[in-house]
Amino acid sequence: MILTVTLNTALDLTYRVERLVPHSSHRVTTVTERPGGKGLNVARVLTALGHDVTVTGFVGGATGEALRAGLNGVRDALFPVLGSTRRTVAVVDSSSGDTTQLNEPGPLITPSEWSTFLTSYETLLTSASAVALCGSLPPGVPVGAYAHLVRGARAAGVPVLLDTSGEPLRRGIAARPDIVKPNADELAELTGSWEPLPATRAARRRGAHAVVASLGPNGLLAATPDGTWQATPAAIVSGNPTGAGDSAVAALLAGLVAGDPWPKRLASAVALSAATVLAPVAGEFDADAYTEFEAGVSVVQHADAA
Amino acid sequence: MILTVTLNTALDLTYRVERLVPHSSHRVTTVTERPGGKGLNVARVLTALGHDVTVTGFVGGATGEALRAGLNGVRDALFPVLGSTRRTVAVVDSSSGDTTQLNEPGPLITPSEWSTFLTSYETLLTSASAVALCGSLPPGVPVGAYAHLVRGARAAGVPVLLDTSGEPLRRGIAARPDIVKPNADELAELTGSWEPLPATRAARRRGAHAVVASLGPNGLLAATPDGTWQATPAAIVSGNPTGAGDSAVAALLAGLVAGDPWPKRLASAVALSAATVLAPVAGEFDADAYTEFEAGVSVVQHADAA
Repeated sequence: MILTVTLNTALDLTYRVERLVPHSSHRVTTVTERPGGKGLNVARVLTALGHDVTVTGFVGGATGEALRAGLNGVRDALFPVLGSTRRTVAVVDSSSGDTTQLNEPGPLITPSEWSTFLTSYETLLTSASAVALCGSLPPGVPVGAYAHLVRGARAAGVPVLLDTSGEPLRRGIAARPDIVKPNADELAELTGSWEPLPATRAARRRGAHAVVASLGPNGLLAATPDGTWQATPAAIVSGNPTGAGDSAVAALLAGLVAGDPWPKRLASAVALSAATVLAPVAGEFDADAYTEFEAGVSVVQHADAA
Repeated sequence: MILTVTLNTALDLTYRVERLVPHSSHRVTTVTERPGGKGLNVARVLTALGHDVTVTGFVGGATGEALRAGLNGVRDALFPVLGSTRRTVAVVDSSSGDTTQLNEPGPLITPSEWSTFLTSYETLLTSASAVALCGSLPPGVPVGAYAHLVRGARAAGVPVLLDTSGEPLRRGIAARPDIVKPNADELAELTGSWEPLPATRAARRRGAHAVVASLGPNGLLAATPDGTWQATPAAIVSGNPTGAGDSAVAALLAGLVAGDPWPKRLASAVALSAATVLAPVAGEFDADAYTEFEAGVSVVQHADAA
């Protein structure tokens, strides 16, 4: 199975309102509610692609129960904690389509919860074909957490993908994960450069075997042991970009497990991202569009300067 | 026991943010969560005053479970339904103190849930010394619901207070409740008049035995079978007015059950409202201030013109 780790899981609420006006009262016209946090989104997409997926991370309180109840089809190895799982609220203006985001803080994880989690993570690794470490850290989890989890996966011989930001990324990348998937902001924060190619190569020199940088609607740029490629969609699709990055991670994991060559992995990831932007519901993808888009992705190899 | 009915219960969330800026992302710095809906707030205040209180109304889903878990000390006779209890989110700007309110719609109540609830309500009335019917109606509940519940209480010989608005108030008042407690907006919507004294008397002619109109920080105006009184606090306190109206309802119920004369009931209600505005947490009251304020309330009788 593929294992995804979401230390800071969330119950994602979407509220549709006529128009958000600060300091007034609003009737929410529709409410949608679903499990969130990057690793849970990745797991949902992988499940839809037919993979056997297990999710782990922390979950607690009544919000945690609601999250678990929404995990249809994904194997639940979430680790219960005393604190309460956070909610995120996306308030969507029906008039403009614009979104205002409110993110609760995550639960405080105690040192004993963290160390017990580590034991359970090691057990899960014994039956994993790949592991993805995704998203932010809740309070109480040490900033070097991902570095520790990357080393655990490498010791168990399980390929590991890391998708996080800031100091947890900086520390995690030094532990030599197989793949990191930063976006432009995360890459610039890590390397100080906003130029995709030098920044991607600089990130790789920090320790990751492969760096797959997301260029938003323009596709992916990958610096790997086999070469450097840029994968570009045939056309830029318009829609809701929420979850497009998580879909790219799902495709990269699927390609990793299948042992696909990099150009094929990247074409899948770009196509699946675009098919996610196209789908009417955030974080879902249009399966027909995915198949159609995959053939249209252009993958160009860069000359491998040092 | 005193029974409070909250058909549209809610889990009330308060999110503190630095400053709410539409179409951007916000870290919520603190989250508070507590059972809400007017009748639950009234019950909490009555419990703090030492009364034996039972709450009923509808509750469902994971949010309903979270609500029930927060009912410390109040007897829970909430009626489970298939739909999910709504949340309300109050987003408080730390910089200005201003609040932006987001209210989810309530669960859809089916005809069979409504009729089963009516049977359980009648059973609860047999041991009630008074009943308060509070707040809005969730979808599916007939607009004449409060009229029906008022008639049920009167048939059982239980004094009944109604605190709602709009068409449910218009219909409910015609069923002759013992007390209605509109605020200025609700009174104007009901009677077409913004002048407190004529509007309060006009509301009474629509069927209520007594009308206690809330004048916000200026106190209460009551038209009753025993006369008309205006009760004014010694000073206007500043603070958070959330829950002040619910505290007034709690005091009016306590006075009703005790058989206190109207001037005493009104002095208590005005003092308890002011002590609620003064308390740092919305919906709680400052017990020392309550005692102190009660002696300072001025209660003046109006000449009883027709």
